[in-house]
Amino acid sequence: MKKLINDPHDVVKEAVAGFVAAHSDLVAAGPDPEELFVHRRGGAVPGKVGLVSGGGSGHEPLHVGFVGEGMLDAAVPGAVFTSPTPGPILAATKAADGGAGVLHIVKNYTGDVLNFETAAELADAEDIDVAAVIINDDVAVQDSLFTAGRRGVAGTVLVEKIAGASAERRDDLATVAAVATKVNERTRSMGVALHACTVPHAGELSFELAEDEIEIGIGIHGEPGRERIPMAGADDITDRLLDAVTTDLGLSGGEEVLLFVNGMGATPLSELYIVYGRAAERLAAAGVKVTRSLVGNYTTALDMQGCSVTVLHLDEELTTLWDAPAKTPAMRSET
Amino acid sequence: MKKLINDPHDVVKEAVAGFVAAHSDLVAAGPDPEELFVHRRGGAVPGKVGLVSGGGSGHEPLHVGFVGEGMLDAAVPGAVFTSPTPGPILAATKAADGGAGVLHIVKNYTGDVLNFETAAELADAEDIDVAAVIINDDVAVQDSLFTAGRRGVAGTVLVEKIAGASAERRDDLATVAAVATKVNERTRSMGVALHACTVPHAGELSFELAEDEIEIGIGIHGEPGRERIPMAGADDITDRLLDAVTTDLGLSGGEEVLLFVNGMGATPLSELYIVYGRAAERLAAAGVKVTRSLVGNYTTALDMQGCSVTVLHLDEELTTLWDAPAKTPAMRSET
Repeated sequence: MKKLINDPHDVVKEAVAGFVAAHSDLVAAGPDPEELFVHRRGGAVPGKVGLVSGGGSGHEPLHVGFVGEGMLDAAVPGAVFTSPTPGPILAATKAADGGAGVLHIVKNYTGDVLNFETAAELADAEDIDVAAVIINDDVAVQDSLFTAGRRGVAGTVLVEKIAGASAERRDDLATVAAVATKVNERTRSMGVALHACTVPHAGELSFELAEDEIEIGIGIHGEPGRERIPMAGADDITDRLLDAVTTDLGLSGGEEVLLFVNGMGATPLSELYIVYGRAAERLAAAGVKVTRSLVGNYTTALDMQGCSVTVLHLDEELTTLWDAPAKTPAMRSET
Repeated sequence: MKKLINDPHDVVKEAVAGFVAAHSDLVAAGPDPEELFVHRRGGAVPGKVGLVSGGGSGHEPLHVGFVGEGMLDAAVPGAVFTSPTPGPILAATKAADGGAGVLHIVKNYTGDVLNFETAAELADAEDIDVAAVIINDDVAVQDSLFTAGRRGVAGTVLVEKIAGASAERRDDLATVAAVATKVNERTRSMGVALHACTVPHAGELSFELAEDEIEIGIGIHGEPGRERIPMAGADDITDRLLDAVTTDLGLSGGEEVLLFVNGMGATPLSELYIVYGRAAERLAAAGVKVTRSLVGNYTTALDMQGCSVTVLHLDEELTTLWDAPAKTPAMRSET
């Protein structure tokens, strides 16, 4: 294992410190290093619903990279591939509360769901209204290593952007939660791994793939997917991912969608664009109109090679909110 | 070799097609597929100096990702790690000319320099004023596999941003060229590879590194650097890169700088932030003030693992131009 790290146990602490130093115009760290979270510079916005997400580290820029105007108010990075505990989630929730309540955006992994629930109960005891949306966009498998039900993967970014815009225009907590739920319900993803990742403190590959095989339906922690198949061309792989997504989403033609090709961390941008091009062609051939796009490393799995394809079935409201301004370290858009 | 590609010979064509499809709100491809280039949507801006860059593909998002308002007017992607020929460079130059002349931003590799020179002569014959700036920010080695003199690496992004802002405010060609030259003269970079990259049509690693060694001073095509050393911690590696850069730049304390940690393509963002944090600490300890930052995959070498550290010695003019708005697929900033 060769990584640009020092002590494997300091990876998250040091990476977050560097992140906050690089983006001190936008974000700051919470006051207690034992309850690590990142919040929007300047703190909670009075009267605005606060958005808090988090989860195991190793998926950067998710979640800390999306803290800032128009997206998250705070993000809680756990240890690598390990849920944060309720303590820092509660601290982040309090820091994000501007008096209008807080929405927890939680990827559907057992540890995350439990710890966010506990933090929500503790926040409730301190008179903070908390709602939660559980993200489960991954169509690959029903249950998995760390999950009951579908996993939450790259679609989380779309929820954070669109619910963030809803909060920014001062929608109330119930409305922001409904918007987030709507995005989740209209979003599906599936991924592929060409090569596994290496967790720093483990020091070895999270799983093994032969030189001529790939894993279709991979999870973002290297959890097993649907099947291992022989290495194939980008078009073939793209079709497998996209077909699973569009079938599950029930697209029949005539819809407008956002097409998102997400890199798992170690895949060149040029390859992501090859996948995007194929997926866009296939959608067009099926009469589905791609009106918005996103391509890049947004929800990674450390140094995994591979990508995922996400489709969000847009409507006018979601398109308007997607287009709203955002100013975060990892995503910016202007009016 | 496992890559998300189809025929290795179609990689650039397909990746550019996907890129243009994903960002059709900002960019378009030139009309002739045999003379491939990408230009700003809407074409040349009347009265504005046009900026054209290009070079071998495999460094994405450089250069096509920086086409758009506030940066490049056109970019010419060659074959992977291979200079584009004069034909498409000339076509891009003509497409970028708004009547105020065109600046070529050329990384210092023999093929690029020759082909851009030839294109400039052809453009001159068509009464287009062309100036050129040669980027040579890499302090690692004096001459190299593809270069006489220093190589141009990640600092190119900073030149494209700052000269782009100069052109956007309607500076004339001599002024934009002088700004670009000034950025180059005040920028130094050095990189490290932990693992080599694989060129698609070659199908094998561009060089071999043992499991316990790394290459300090690596080029962005895998050209040899200064030395191979045993694998070390991130702090040690960062210090080696940063010290070479700051020594060459002659920083003595009191300066304001932009600190840029660039990923080579397959390195997790968390690792880049660990490097950033260490470099920022070391600069602060030396009395150098980091007032601007950039962290991410901006000048890559396909799927190489590693990073480079770039320092730009700012002044008030360069800071103002760095902060100016840009709206491109791979870099956005607002006023």
